[in-house]
Amino acid sequence: MAVGWFYLSFYALSLLGLMCVILTVYWMQLWHGGFAWDGTSLMFNYHPVFMVAGSVVVYSAASLVYRLPQSWVGPKLPWKIGHAVLHLLAFILTVLGLVVVFQFHNHENTVSLYSLHSWLGIVTVFLFACQWFLGFVVFLLPWVSVWLRSLLKPIHVFFGAIILFLSIASVISGINEKLFFSLNNNTQPYSSLPSEAVFANSTGMLVVVFGVLVLYILLVSSWKRPEPGILSEGQPLLCDGE
Amino acid sequence: MAVGWFYLSFYALSLLGLMCVILTVYWMQLWHGGFAWDGTSLMFNYHPVFMVAGSVVVYSAASLVYRLPQSWVGPKLPWKIGHAVLHLLAFILTVLGLVVVFQFHNHENTVSLYSLHSWLGIVTVFLFACQWFLGFVVFLLPWVSVWLRSLLKPIHVFFGAIILFLSIASVISGINEKLFFSLNNNTQPYSSLPSEAVFANSTGMLVVVFGVLVLYILLVSSWKRPEPGILSEGQPLLCDGE
Repeated sequence: MAVGWFYLSFYALSLLGLMCVILTVYWMQLWHGGFAWDGTSLMFNYHPVFMVAGSVVVYSAASLVYRLPQSWVGPKLPWKIGHAVLHLLAFILTVLGLVVVFQFHNHENTVSLYSLHSWLGIVTVFLFACQWFLGFVVFLLPWVSVWLRSLLKPIHVFFGAIILFLSIASVISGINEKLFFSLNNNTQPYSSLPSEAVFANSTGMLVVVFGVLVLYILLVSSWKRPEPGILSEGQPLLCDGE
Repeated sequence: MAVGWFYLSFYALSLLGLMCVILTVYWMQLWHGGFAWDGTSLMFNYHPVFMVAGSVVVYSAASLVYRLPQSWVGPKLPWKIGHAVLHLLAFILTVLGLVVVFQFHNHENTVSLYSLHSWLGIVTVFLFACQWFLGFVVFLLPWVSVWLRSLLKPIHVFFGAIILFLSIASVISGINEKLFFSLNNNTQPYSSLPSEAVFANSTGMLVVVFGVLVLYILLVSSWKRPEPGILSEGQPLLCDGE
C-alpha cells in the first residue's frame, strides 16, 4: 500500500514536472515563434525552457534521488553519483539558459543584469555552482570525515531546498517580466488577460505547485534512506568497496 | 557562549527585518511621493510596505516565537497565544496590503488580479488564512487529540515555511513589476539602472537574505523547544491548567 502510494506520487510528480517543461515550450512556440540558435528573440525563447527544465525540474529530480526506495538499501555510492550527475545536468541546462539570454542581449545591443529577476537569477546560479562544488568535495571525495559529513548534511539539504526556492522565485518573476514585455500593446494588454497571459500565468502557478510538492517530499515525507552506518556514510568516491 | 550567539543572531535578524521595512518605506517616500489614504497612487504606495512588513517580517517574527529560549521552559500556552496573535497581526497587515491595491485599482478604473504576481500573491494570502484558521483549530482549541497534533505539527511547520517562501516570491515579482511600471520612460529606463532601480533591487535582495536566514533558523537550527510531555503538548486554550 505504502509502496503503491509512493509510485503513484512518483509518476504524478514526474508528469507534473514534464507538463511544466512542455507548457513552457508550447508558450514560446505558439506565441513567440519557436526557437533558433541565432541571437534573435527566437534564441531568447530557449531561456524560459532551459530555466524551467534545468533549475526546477531536473534539479528536483536530482534532489529527490535518495527518496527512491531502491536507494535505501545496498551501497550508497551509485546513488551519490546519480545525485551529482543529475545535478550537473541541471546546472548545464541552467548555464545554457544564461548563455541564450546573454547572446540575445549582445545581438540586440541591450543591457543585461539590470532587473531584480536577473539579480536574483544570477545569484541563484552562483549558489547552485557553490552547492554542487561543495557537495562534490564534501560528500564524494574521500578526504572528509564521517563526522564532518554528518554535520554538513542538514546544511547541504537546506541549501538544496533554498536554491530550488530561489529558482522558482526567479522563474515567477521572469514569467511576469516577459508578459509585461510582450503584452504591452494597447489592443491586447496583459491586464485584459489574453490567452497568452492565462496560459503563461497558469504555467507559472504549476511550477509553484510542482516546487511545493518536491519540497514536501524532500523535507517532510517519510520516504528517506535510513541513516546508514559509519562505513557506508563515509564511503568515498575513490573507494573500491562499493 | 551559545546564548550569546543566539542573542547576536536575534538582534541582527531583527535589525535586518526592520531594514527591509524601512527601505521599502523610503523607496515609496523618496521616489513615489509618500503615502495617503485617498485611492490614488499614494494609496498604492502602502502596498509594498504592508506586504513586506506583514507577509514577510511580522510573519517571520511570529514563526520564530518557539525559537526564543524563554519559550523552551514552562507553560507553552502563552507562547502559543503569542504565536497566533503575531500571525494575526501579520495577516491583518497583509489584508491591508490587498485593500490598498484594490482601492487604488477601483479609483483608477484599472483591472485587478491579472499578473502572475497578483495570482501568486492572492493564492498566498488564501493559504495564509487557511493555515491560521487550521492552526487555531488544531493547536489552540481543546478538542484535537495529542496524537493528531503530533501528526499535524510537521505539516503545520512545513506550510508555515512554504507560505513565507511564496510571500517572498510574490514580493520579488512585485518589486520587479513595479520597477517596470515606474521606470518605463526613455530618459531613465530600468535597464539604465537609475538610483531607484539599484535601491529597490537591493531591497528585494535583502528581503530574500532575511527570508533565507529565517527559514534556516526555523528548519535547521538547534534552537528548538524540546518536545514537551503529553500534558503540555495537549494543553488546550480553554484549560485552566496553565
